[in-house]
Amino acid sequence: MADSGILFVVSAPAGCGKDTILNELFKKTDAAGYAVSATTRAPREGEENGVHYHFLSREEFMEKISQNEVLEYTEYCGNYYGTLKKSVDDLLSKGKDAVLKIEIEGAMNIRKQFPEACLVFILPPSWEVLETRLRNRGTETPEKIAERIKQAQTELSYAENYDYLIVNDALETAVDDLLSVFRAEKHKRSRCGKLLEQFK
Amino acid sequence: MADSGILFVVSAPAGCGKDTILNELFKKTDAAGYAVSATTRAPREGEENGVHYHFLSREEFMEKISQNEVLEYTEYCGNYYGTLKKSVDDLLSKGKDAVLKIEIEGAMNIRKQFPEACLVFILPPSWEVLETRLRNRGTETPEKIAERIKQAQTELSYAENYDYLIVNDALETAVDDLLSVFRAEKHKRSRCGKLLEQFK
Repeated sequence: MADSGILFVVSAPAGCGKDTILNELFKKTDAAGYAVSATTRAPREGEENGVHYHFLSREEFMEKISQNEVLEYTEYCGNYYGTLKKSVDDLLSKGKDAVLKIEIEGAMNIRKQFPEACLVFILPPSWEVLETRLRNRGTETPEKIAERIKQAQTELSYAENYDYLIVNDALETAVDDLLSVFRAEKHKRSRCGKLLEQFK
Repeated sequence: MADSGILFVVSAPAGCGKDTILNELFKKTDAAGYAVSATTRAPREGEENGVHYHFLSREEFMEKISQNEVLEYTEYCGNYYGTLKKSVDDLLSKGKDAVLKIEIEGAMNIRKQFPEACLVFILPPSWEVLETRLRNRGTETPEKIAERIKQAQTELSYAENYDYLIVNDALETAVDDLLSVFRAEKHKRSRCGKLLEQFK
């Protein structure tokens, strides 16, 4: 119903379950597809090239940047992370919506380039719940945990720059909330110019 | 999730099935309730007071206007039609969203008074389909039919002032589209100030 596919951005601090939400969402809809990010970091166990990330060498990544093939990118812990233009275009050209799972800096870059993109932020049920999750994750040093908590606080402060907020308290509810957002956005008048044309 | 109940306005030209859509919608959700309009016209067969309309005498209607109990009203074919403040407040105070089924003039009045209201316009599958429906309705004079078609054209020209457009091609799809809009609006960042407070 919208004139063309929509660019959705989904962000959340670590521990808010955005991967699980998106995995469940893609089981329920084929109107939207996941635009896989690119990175120069090494694949972790179980990660597949083209599924979890497009794994590129630093040289390949730099070349794509220079050829204007990267929509946004950021450096984190010495590695590049970014969105390939092709990943998005492939979906939109099929009439699908493209979903980017990127962090706040990337999201703000997308917003600048594509003011019509729709940004969704996933929140934890409460700050206490998130803090507990981050503290209990693995066997990290107190410094690492403190850093992670600080990071989550920074990320949460960006939530007010997003279009929609979804709390991940009950997984199924959060998935259906996100599906509703995706579906409703297709019907926004500002996206339906062609539809109105025929009634003029 | 939104800080408070939302005021939804649903409009459509005659013959677009908005009554059927809303009837089906209220079977599927109790998050929203129908804010029954008031009118000074006589009840038609099968219409119940307080269900289809609040049927008021002209004097009662005028008194409510003078006491500031009417949110918006319009005169049509010698009768008043309007929205009682109480109908909306009763729903919002229960934490429900309030759905107004009103025509374009009333909708524009609501928008002026409540900029945060969400306006949805139901469209027919095509102009041809709507015109055929209006022509084949009952046994009216050619003049009456021409008037009705002109009215529908005027109403459709207002669709661009609404927030969302939903095409009623397949009933179930249209109902689910509208449900998605209602659900998504609850998650709009601009409506969720209190939610973000707790993370500050």
